[in-house]
Amino acid sequence: MTNYLKEDAIRRVVFSELSKLDMPEQDAKYLVEGLLHSSMRGIDTHGIALLPTYLEELRGGRSRTKPNLQWQQPLPCCLKLDADGANGVVAASHAMLRAIEVASVYGVAVVSVRNSNHFAAASIYTHMAAERDMIGICLSNSDALVGLENGKEPFLGTNPIAMTASGAGGELFDLDFATSQVSYSKVRRHLNEGKPIPSGWAKDAEGNDTSCTNEFHALEALGGYKGQGIGFMVQILTSVLADTPFDNQLSHLYCEPYDSPRNIAHTMVVLSPAMFDPTNGSVDGFKSRLSGLMATAREQGDGVTLPGDKERQCKSARAQSGIPVSPEFYNWFLELSETN
Amino acid sequence: MTNYLKEDAIRRVVFSELSKLDMPEQDAKYLVEGLLHSSMRGIDTHGIALLPTYLEELRGGRSRTKPNLQWQQPLPCCLKLDADGANGVVAASHAMLRAIEVASVYGVAVVSVRNSNHFAAASIYTHMAAERDMIGICLSNSDALVGLENGKEPFLGTNPIAMTASGAGGELFDLDFATSQVSYSKVRRHLNEGKPIPSGWAKDAEGNDTSCTNEFHALEALGGYKGQGIGFMVQILTSVLADTPFDNQLSHLYCEPYDSPRNIAHTMVVLSPAMFDPTNGSVDGFKSRLSGLMATAREQGDGVTLPGDKERQCKSARAQSGIPVSPEFYNWFLELSETN
Repeated sequence: MTNYLKEDAIRRVVFSELSKLDMPEQDAKYLVEGLLHSSMRGIDTHGIALLPTYLEELRGGRSRTKPNLQWQQPLPCCLKLDADGANGVVAASHAMLRAIEVASVYGVAVVSVRNSNHFAAASIYTHMAAERDMIGICLSNSDALVGLENGKEPFLGTNPIAMTASGAGGELFDLDFATSQVSYSKVRRHLNEGKPIPSGWAKDAEGNDTSCTNEFHALEALGGYKGQGIGFMVQILTSVLADTPFDNQLSHLYCEPYDSPRNIAHTMVVLSPAMFDPTNGSVDGFKSRLSGLMATAREQGDGVTLPGDKERQCKSARAQSGIPVSPEFYNWFLELSETN
Repeated sequence: MTNYLKEDAIRRVVFSELSKLDMPEQDAKYLVEGLLHSSMRGIDTHGIALLPTYLEELRGGRSRTKPNLQWQQPLPCCLKLDADGANGVVAASHAMLRAIEVASVYGVAVVSVRNSNHFAAASIYTHMAAERDMIGICLSNSDALVGLENGKEPFLGTNPIAMTASGAGGELFDLDFATSQVSYSKVRRHLNEGKPIPSGWAKDAEGNDTSCTNEFHALEALGGYKGQGIGFMVQILTSVLADTPFDNQLSHLYCEPYDSPRNIAHTMVVLSPAMFDPTNGSVDGFKSRLSGLMATAREQGDGVTLPGDKERQCKSARAQSGIPVSPEFYNWFLELSETN
């Protein structure tokens, strides 16, 4: 049986718990709203399902409830944030909001974030930009899960890239992808259900393609060597730029103990489309062209689905139903509710 | 029998021909050096093999030998270039060099280019940045060859992305990929040789995977829906930003007549790693970390190949052998040589 939870119930209980942990109200808001944003849009692995782990990280000290965010801005459009071990959603929200602010004035902003933690879904932050008519781009490195071609051990993270941009009339281009062929959670679902893994998803300990769940050792990169290259690209633009550990030096999200910093790096890029408009210098042209492109793409076939379509449909459905959660999460949440 | 041509022979003959067409010497240099750069590194489809077509474009007026490049710089780091129908290599070289100049001062630069043409390989330009210790990123839209999931007609270009960054001791991270699973030229090679197309490369007129060369209708996106999303991302950051035709509205490179403008859009992004360095603010830390990452990756297995490795090996080999060319190209070049 699937249990459903309403947004407001989660908000109330989690805010209360975060307040007991002494997290500032605004940061708690970023954290809860970010996870709800993912869950409402159907990105269940990167939504409220992360709450038990995030709370363990805060309680154990792996992430700090009251980080001392240190900003440097050597030049107007170049920003660096040492997040002092903040929860990743908190760090990335601060970074993106500042990037938006700078890009609103200077047309472009790049923020390099170090000493952060797992930040849920990259699209949480790119949405913040799109809501303000900016193009938001977000990258992060992450612990190694993806194997190299001709390599045996996992070496690259699933290193996500997201980009969101607003069209006219509520249209949204909303891309958020991992640089692995599929996410680890998809493989794990096959592991849990005892189903064979489709070819091209996973490698065994010898680096060969495997469909056997108990031979799983590493994920396959998106489309082979190209995805491997994109994974490196993200790592270079995040951790190499910010001087933080390589993907294969990072501890794993779900590995206890929860008391050591992980030092994950993110990079936020925000562009103001109006500044690049060749004619009238307003954002309206860009928005209407983006909507036109997406409308034309939808005319190409009944089943054509564009980045963001499924998430929008899911959000509408879940506004009615609430967010479906596993029995384990439901019980965890009930317990948390009793103490808050 | 394979024929080989030496760089200097090509330089001499093509410069002379471009000078007859009244192209300014500096622009001719960009064009010839860009194509040689690709050919020497083994990117044969995006090197001197393009010369016959590029010369037809210049003779026919599709691209202009003496374009009136129009720059706008609404804010220090945001630049727009209307290339006035310049040859793509010329337009993109000007754009990247200006981006490097701006990023050297401001840390970041974004240049949106409109009204350009085919620009050969994106890595020609990202190399320019890496040679000056900057991170160079280059995107372009292109005529539609990639089919959408559940769509029948080609809708997206192979919309390339390249990023190059310099490490210490001559190390180079050098990624240049199309957002299709494979390039059209790879499929064409199978067509020419009458060999079946591997599964996952191409679609027939109904949008289904096909291995039959005479059923080829569109390329498959890199890794399926993710590559489709990346193709849209590139198009949005190039043509939607610059207000130029969508991929599926562009004429095809090899379609005569050569007298109508194509209006391709590129985007150059340059970052100064020094500006993002959290400690000493010099580029040395970034360079040494990048080399460290690549060295660690190479230790993962004997056959591990990183973006740029094959190209570097090819360049060494061709410095000795010259550039291998097809009999057709060789004859074309001999004829051109006689008149120059």
